[in-house]
Amino acid sequence: MEKQPDDLGKTDVTPTYENLYSDRSRTMKASEIRELLKLTQRPEIISFAGGLPNPDAFPVEPIKEIVQDLLKSDSKRILQYGSTQGVPELREEISKRLKNRWNMDGDPDNVLITVGSQQGLELLGRLFLDPTSTIVMEAPTYLGALNAFAVYEPRVSSIPLDDHGLDVDKLEEYLVNLQKHSVNLKFIYVVPTFHNPAGVCMAESRRHKLMDLSHEYDFLIVEDDPYGELRYTGEPLPTLKSLDKEDRVIYLGTFSKTLVPGFRIAWSFGPKPIINKMEIAKQAMDLCTPPFTQHIAKEYLRRGYIDEHLKTIISIYGNKQRIMLKAMDEYMPKEHIRWTKPEGGMFLWATLSDGMDSTEMFTDAIAENVAYVTGKSFFADDAGQNCMRINFTHPGDEKIVEGVKRLAPVIEKWGDKVRKMKDDTGSEVIQGV
Amino acid sequence: MEKQPDDLGKTDVTPTYENLYSDRSRTMKASEIRELLKLTQRPEIISFAGGLPNPDAFPVEPIKEIVQDLLKSDSKRILQYGSTQGVPELREEISKRLKNRWNMDGDPDNVLITVGSQQGLELLGRLFLDPTSTIVMEAPTYLGALNAFAVYEPRVSSIPLDDHGLDVDKLEEYLVNLQKHSVNLKFIYVVPTFHNPAGVCMAESRRHKLMDLSHEYDFLIVEDDPYGELRYTGEPLPTLKSLDKEDRVIYLGTFSKTLVPGFRIAWSFGPKPIINKMEIAKQAMDLCTPPFTQHIAKEYLRRGYIDEHLKTIISIYGNKQRIMLKAMDEYMPKEHIRWTKPEGGMFLWATLSDGMDSTEMFTDAIAENVAYVTGKSFFADDAGQNCMRINFTHPGDEKIVEGVKRLAPVIEKWGDKVRKMKDDTGSEVIQGV
Repeated sequence: MEKQPDDLGKTDVTPTYENLYSDRSRTMKASEIRELLKLTQRPEIISFAGGLPNPDAFPVEPIKEIVQDLLKSDSKRILQYGSTQGVPELREEISKRLKNRWNMDGDPDNVLITVGSQQGLELLGRLFLDPTSTIVMEAPTYLGALNAFAVYEPRVSSIPLDDHGLDVDKLEEYLVNLQKHSVNLKFIYVVPTFHNPAGVCMAESRRHKLMDLSHEYDFLIVEDDPYGELRYTGEPLPTLKSLDKEDRVIYLGTFSKTLVPGFRIAWSFGPKPIINKMEIAKQAMDLCTPPFTQHIAKEYLRRGYIDEHLKTIISIYGNKQRIMLKAMDEYMPKEHIRWTKPEGGMFLWATLSDGMDSTEMFTDAIAENVAYVTGKSFFADDAGQNCMRINFTHPGDEKIVEGVKRLAPVIEKWGDKVRKMKDDTGSEVIQGV
Repeated sequence: MEKQPDDLGKTDVTPTYENLYSDRSRTMKASEIRELLKLTQRPEIISFAGGLPNPDAFPVEPIKEIVQDLLKSDSKRILQYGSTQGVPELREEISKRLKNRWNMDGDPDNVLITVGSQQGLELLGRLFLDPTSTIVMEAPTYLGALNAFAVYEPRVSSIPLDDHGLDVDKLEEYLVNLQKHSVNLKFIYVVPTFHNPAGVCMAESRRHKLMDLSHEYDFLIVEDDPYGELRYTGEPLPTLKSLDKEDRVIYLGTFSKTLVPGFRIAWSFGPKPIINKMEIAKQAMDLCTPPFTQHIAKEYLRRGYIDEHLKTIISIYGNKQRIMLKAMDEYMPKEHIRWTKPEGGMFLWATLSDGMDSTEMFTDAIAENVAYVTGKSFFADDAGQNCMRINFTHPGDEKIVEGVKRLAPVIEKWGDKVRKMKDDTGSEVIQGV
């Protein structure tokens, strides 16, 4: 049967979307880590890859109680649209807690409620970054921050970390150089406490020095603190925001690790003019964060459940951290790998011998049913190939030991292989680390 | 006491944030409508201003039941992080409903769950718009879409509406002209069913013509449909997406009006390559929509509660619409104002005589304790000064009548005043409309 004229060229003419995309989205690709993480979801895999809280530690009973009470007493409000800045009583509870617990001065108008801290990062990118802007990030740094800022195409300078956090002397050298070239630094992004992925804390003296540098070179500080409440050993450190006499710090906090991630409730706490601009930007983005889950978080603070619950999490996670460190010590081939010994948070950061590549090794690890996140995901450039991030909060206690036992021989095999290659070529002799 | 050297220039040196803002955010301002809406929150005000569902119509009991069940059976999952694309079972329920109820073909991978449809708009702006891009919007159009797209600085061309929706002949003239100048149209944004703010529906013949034009001139269509389920009289119309043979339509739907706004659960339903790009963009923006409220929405569909509840809302809102239209007819000075007679949705759109200005009139209306949204908020240019949007779903039934009674004399006063000025100058004689 011949085609009717009406059909000619009419059906199955899918537009070529590629011609229509914006410049910024043309290069957008699914991140490699997402593809890797898909592999880690098989049930037989012991995954040290995710950054997930342990669901056994979710405060289900308090949530049940709160939701029932709220649906009885305040349903018309908690189920309706809310203000862009966030539920006022939640902002008040947060500012009170930040004051009482962390000595951070502010009131509810210093607080913007966001859909996860990720949205705080997105908003800061939007507010501050042009394609010519310069920012500093730690190396390694939080992968989600890299992604959030990348949309706005800044120049990212990386300053290395060591076991005591950001190397502030290297930062100072960099700032001197920047000033010579009359370049304006917009902000530095840091995770000073229980770093993701490195697990380390910025030493107190370095915190003071960073504040001094921010004054001297006139830049802002984005302090991302999702893990600050999760300390298992050692003494608390002051947040940068608590040392901030000049209103230069925007502090990002979240309920994802102290209540549950599934509510997506986080906050930005900063200078009012900035919070106000973030609010305006957020309005065009999603109107408001879900009032329903904001009200639950508010009651969770009001009823004082958070401190009780933190004790539980800290006990569970602290135990897992000890199990992990002990298993690493017992089973890992120390001539090929060293790792950080964090006092809190959710991650160890492991560094393999020079020449080893955690991405190459990944397929072998998956074959042994164990997973981690490859190190290079956490760098703005292509560094970190010989590193890996290891989570210890999500797997069950026995799984931690079993996972380390599975991973150790993979590392040994690749380490020996790389050493042999080096010996053969004679170019370099591994010293061990 | 003299200042110590350490203090010199150290304290109270608040940075001048203005120097640090990005170009795009430097011009960001709180919208005028937000400031106006703040005035309308006083309890003595009868507000026709908001776009809020009526909280008396919230399905509180079904939500209670669902939340209790989910916290019992599935707490570890609903309280954890989720995938960026959204809970798979929710995406499946949505694609099934779109097929069965609206004859829209697709599967769960055509669906992305977003934090309100507003986030869908934001993502589409990010994906498609460069500062040089051309898009078409209706005039008037949804204010939130204007704001979402404005961030990406497109050239917005406005095509007028009449009582039968978008004037597709004017659109065609415009497209011919655009083609002459070799300009590429990215997309047209439309609210074809129960338009916000105009309340009207695009006639079926115009829908077909719009689809034909999208083929001929090769552009995409963003179909925003928050109110399609809220029909009080007349016959259903096909969605543009259901007429879409070439995968050119991105359809935005939401639970904000059919369940509750406080969960912030909406969806984009479109071509898989576009949904996939939107997902990647969303990941950098907020990682995921709250799984907790997604799971509630999923159960709401699964248990078949939505259709029962829609009957309730339609009965309540349909009654309010009749009350509103009757009161308008009875009390409004028809020589100064005409209005649309919508068959569904949440709004009437009123047009005042030439020369009248709904913004000037606003203070008087507030003095009489009644509020509306000024018309010019809904235009990309400065048009619509003699228009206003009137919501009828949120106020109580008696308040609707009382509010119209308060508003009518304000309109009469300003109408008479403007007519007198015109008579005095002799420049023009109002004909009445």
